[in-house]
Amino acid sequence: MKDKFTAKYNPGAELKGDDWLHLHRNENLLIDSHWTVEAAQKLAAPAAIASYPNANSDALRAALAELYGVKPGNVFVGNGSDEVLADLLHLLRRSYDRMSVLDVCFKIFLLLAERYDFQLETLPGNTFATGQISVDGWKGLAVIDSPNAITSAAFMFERLKELAKNENAFLILDNAYGEFAGDLVPPTIQKNIVVVRTFSKFYGLAGLRVGYCIADEALVAELLARKDAFNVNSFAQVMALEALRRRKDFEAIRDRLLECRRALIQRLHGFGFTTHPAAGNFLLATHPDFSAELIQNELMKQHIAVRRFDGKLTSNYIRITVPPMSDVERLTDALDEIFSTTEMEIPQK
Amino acid sequence: MKDKFTAKYNPGAELKGDDWLHLHRNENLLIDSHWTVEAAQKLAAPAAIASYPNANSDALRAALAELYGVKPGNVFVGNGSDEVLADLLHLLRRSYDRMSVLDVCFKIFLLLAERYDFQLETLPGNTFATGQISVDGWKGLAVIDSPNAITSAAFMFERLKELAKNENAFLILDNAYGEFAGDLVPPTIQKNIVVVRTFSKFYGLAGLRVGYCIADEALVAELLARKDAFNVNSFAQVMALEALRRRKDFEAIRDRLLECRRALIQRLHGFGFTTHPAAGNFLLATHPDFSAELIQNELMKQHIAVRRFDGKLTSNYIRITVPPMSDVERLTDALDEIFSTTEMEIPQK
Repeated sequence: MKDKFTAKYNPGAELKGDDWLHLHRNENLLIDSHWTVEAAQKLAAPAAIASYPNANSDALRAALAELYGVKPGNVFVGNGSDEVLADLLHLLRRSYDRMSVLDVCFKIFLLLAERYDFQLETLPGNTFATGQISVDGWKGLAVIDSPNAITSAAFMFERLKELAKNENAFLILDNAYGEFAGDLVPPTIQKNIVVVRTFSKFYGLAGLRVGYCIADEALVAELLARKDAFNVNSFAQVMALEALRRRKDFEAIRDRLLECRRALIQRLHGFGFTTHPAAGNFLLATHPDFSAELIQNELMKQHIAVRRFDGKLTSNYIRITVPPMSDVERLTDALDEIFSTTEMEIPQK
Repeated sequence: MKDKFTAKYNPGAELKGDDWLHLHRNENLLIDSHWTVEAAQKLAAPAAIASYPNANSDALRAALAELYGVKPGNVFVGNGSDEVLADLLHLLRRSYDRMSVLDVCFKIFLLLAERYDFQLETLPGNTFATGQISVDGWKGLAVIDSPNAITSAAFMFERLKELAKNENAFLILDNAYGEFAGDLVPPTIQKNIVVVRTFSKFYGLAGLRVGYCIADEALVAELLARKDAFNVNSFAQVMALEALRRRKDFEAIRDRLLECRRALIQRLHGFGFTTHPAAGNFLLATHPDFSAELIQNELMKQHIAVRRFDGKLTSNYIRITVPPMSDVERLTDALDEIFSTTEMEIPQK
């Protein structure tokens, strides 16, 4: 382990004040959060907060297994998908000393590579620029976010599966935004493929930290043996179960969200933005004339937060979480003001 | 890392049915759990469950810092004290390849030693039998649960501090039951001492998984840099803050609990039990005539769960969580029945 830890994860600014439009953290903004308050009031008693939680999240694992047509023994639940990824990578460190990621990827991967002392490599294919990934003859450990956490672009599962063709290869598919892309979790489990999902995005429970993965039974058994004894709190377990019960509501919300995404992309194109192909509840955009930094700063002045990244490839992009239509309008109005004024030529402080 | 993981943590059976007396998981049984339901109803909205939690539990760290007269930079909050211990040990693995524990100790330590590939050793002193610990010239990594998670026995902090006298030594004090023992967290921080505490015991929030440690600022900074991005859920953060606000209530509950413990010990001595010195909300007892296994099984028949351990030294002991007085009576009646019948000579199935 290195002496100094250099990777940093920036969770996106926490902003004070009510009038902010939070388009910078990829939360599911189309969910009326009132349901969580109502459900919480109903579920606080059954959660039995004073007692230790069910150690292995058994009820939740059973419900997820039913949803995906797999066995409960194929499901592992963690304190957010970042814990699931951490536990997986810690375990796989026995077999792999390198991990390969896309040229633009979820920043947590970099942090976990450092934590578990993996040599980090980029999968060939210049994916950000080409939309392609070179999978031929792959036999390492690949950790792929699809839809991608930065770009929102997705690969077909059938294509990614080729990364696990060789039995010495391993694919962790971080599918946190999978439900927005219509991805199916394959009910046929393959020993060297793990699909990681979360309740933070589609179900909008980011505050409660519930992630899970679908994997080979032997692997799940090892994850269960090594995890923190009580890794998922009792309240999160009952709330996640309730979210699964309301799955149809979330599907309807997703459909509305995809409409808002289409509208947002249209507006952005109208302003001259180029957008990356979007499969998640957000999109990555760049403008040919105005820097991403300037656009972000100008939006901040109107209390609209969008995200920028310091990677070389994405340095002139902004990432925008898809909001409800009314906020697509607010964003449009803000951009209209930014692009129509000439004040920008007055030097910024 | 070893190929097969052998350490197992047994969280204590989850029992179905309402009439069970749960004296086997060291939960705080004197707390009326109604407050958690009321508080949850009030706090579900402010918790903002749909949004990502505060990444570093800043408000909670500030409140704990105020309570202990230290800086927020001295406080690290984790998803239960088992995560805090895990993160600490993972970090300390850079500097130590052995960790030393008491001859009878919290089983999580064994699991974590295996997870992070420490060689596990027992601190000299035959502590279980003698109540002593040899600290002279110590310069390794000691992980001490005081009050002890199995025996309930405690050491004076001044004594334990000697384990950190040498600058090459390090002491992790797992003080999960510290509030029951009247332990003070020392406001003077020492670089090589970390005190770990939890909201699971004194505050009775075991279901929510909130643990923390008080440590050197540089160490806390490293823990923050390496932890899972969002390790403590938003609901747990607001509930823990609420518990701190109600601290006086919990102190009164603790005082009543200590009275119940005294009464319970008296009753047990009346039945001929020997008890280990108890500093936590539980005690370890053994009977000269009847095996711990028999007593546990007979109590189970009356739906009273007590805990046994498979360690050599404690194999003939039962661990009993201190319940309210009415349940001390119920346990007493049950023991009365067990010890007064002669049926026990009829072979058990």
